[in-house]
Amino acid sequence: VSGRVYLVGAGPGALDLLTLRAARLLESADIVFYDALANPEMLKLAPNAKLVAVGKRHGRHSTAQTFINKQLVDAAKKYATVVRLKGGDPMLFGRAQEEIDALTAAGIEVEVVPGITAALAASASLKVSLTRRGIARHVAFVTPRIGKMERESDWIATAVAADTAVIYMGAGEAEAIAQTLIARGRRADTPVALIENASLASERQWLGRLEELAVISRALNGGPAIIVLGEVLAERGALQALTELPAWRHLSSSLG
Amino acid sequence: VSGRVYLVGAGPGALDLLTLRAARLLESADIVFYDALANPEMLKLAPNAKLVAVGKRHGRHSTAQTFINKQLVDAAKKYATVVRLKGGDPMLFGRAQEEIDALTAAGIEVEVVPGITAALAASASLKVSLTRRGIARHVAFVTPRIGKMERESDWIATAVAADTAVIYMGAGEAEAIAQTLIARGRRADTPVALIENASLASERQWLGRLEELAVISRALNGGPAIIVLGEVLAERGALQALTELPAWRHLSSSLG
Repeated sequence: VSGRVYLVGAGPGALDLLTLRAARLLESADIVFYDALANPEMLKLAPNAKLVAVGKRHGRHSTAQTFINKQLVDAAKKYATVVRLKGGDPMLFGRAQEEIDALTAAGIEVEVVPGITAALAASASLKVSLTRRGIARHVAFVTPRIGKMERESDWIATAVAADTAVIYMGAGEAEAIAQTLIARGRRADTPVALIENASLASERQWLGRLEELAVISRALNGGPAIIVLGEVLAERGALQALTELPAWRHLSSSLG
Repeated sequence: VSGRVYLVGAGPGALDLLTLRAARLLESADIVFYDALANPEMLKLAPNAKLVAVGKRHGRHSTAQTFINKQLVDAAKKYATVVRLKGGDPMLFGRAQEEIDALTAAGIEVEVVPGITAALAASASLKVSLTRRGIARHVAFVTPRIGKMERESDWIATAVAADTAVIYMGAGEAEAIAQTLIARGRRADTPVALIENASLASERQWLGRLEELAVISRALNGGPAIIVLGEVLAERGALQALTELPAWRHLSSSLG
């Protein structure tokens, strides 16, 4: 008897940004695999499930991924409802394809439950739409790869061309990202927002200009953070950054 | 006494792809404004609310938008909890900024509740991740504007540069979109998927090549549809299109 595996988007972190489908699946799960980005409160929604931590973050560690694939296949041979809880949406920067392919190859049924991705949670918190008539008709979600420019991973061209760009998993390389984007033609004064722990009580936001991104990023506390850039932020930056965001005000004055 | 307005993402259509927060807000809403893309079942989650249809789809009709803004402001002066339910995510192609700005200008508090955007629902249904290590590190969401190429709306450059491109609200212009993208450098044999009514029981999918998009799009039934293109679809297309998708098989044979 083979169970079914659900790759479930956990959303950005806030418990109530889970979908109804995700919550129902957690309730009926026999086993739940979760990673470092999962909110511990979410696991309480799965009172009958065996809980298995899979310690991986930001998609590093290929070995870990292979092991997770194997764990999922093994679990499906033993349990009817297997939930693989993944931060954000499974299909954006979540390495879901490797899990889907491994399960499919083993003859196991897979379903994917979409989740709220961090960019949309950040946009909601900022109250700045990622698209806007007359200003932004396209938005790109990218992961940077500093120092590598082969066509397949030319995230830079996309992040320069897009009206609005959202950079996932890049805050640790903020300085190189800003330099690279400016060198390739993005204006140094492009409005930028940095959001850490989007949707959680610990969320923090900073607003500034692309050329200041490195300085702004020093204020991060090590939580997952995303960078948003584009003219959609201009009005918000001008009107509110200096009055509402003490961390940014502090950093702004230190820029001299 | 001023109420608060919640711009709530309704997700792609399936009732259980609402977030827990969205469901809770509907339950407590005094008034709900909904548009043509809303699932009627969702409105049953708001038994105590006055329901107001705002007849607009695909962001056309500026006059209608101005009127909706005014309706929201007026409602907030009368009701404590005003929900503006928007298909997908409010901050992607939803004209949310115009509503946020109008409400803010009127001194009314606004919150945004993110939702599952159609691209992620389609990706989940296809079981094809929009990103994939070694193949796709960036994805763009665009709306096309056929025949207009000014910098601010050069969706084409972004859709050509992005490893994976998702085109919203473009299925009606599939032929021009395919021609334009190919003329600007996207390979004619780029794998493409067309998904109508993502997440609903009436969902349909087609897989093919970019040069065939116009032919594929003739099978649409008039529901909201999105186009996904990029190499992430290659394996899925090769393995499964001809065996699983009768509509596509039919079209494929008619291509001659």
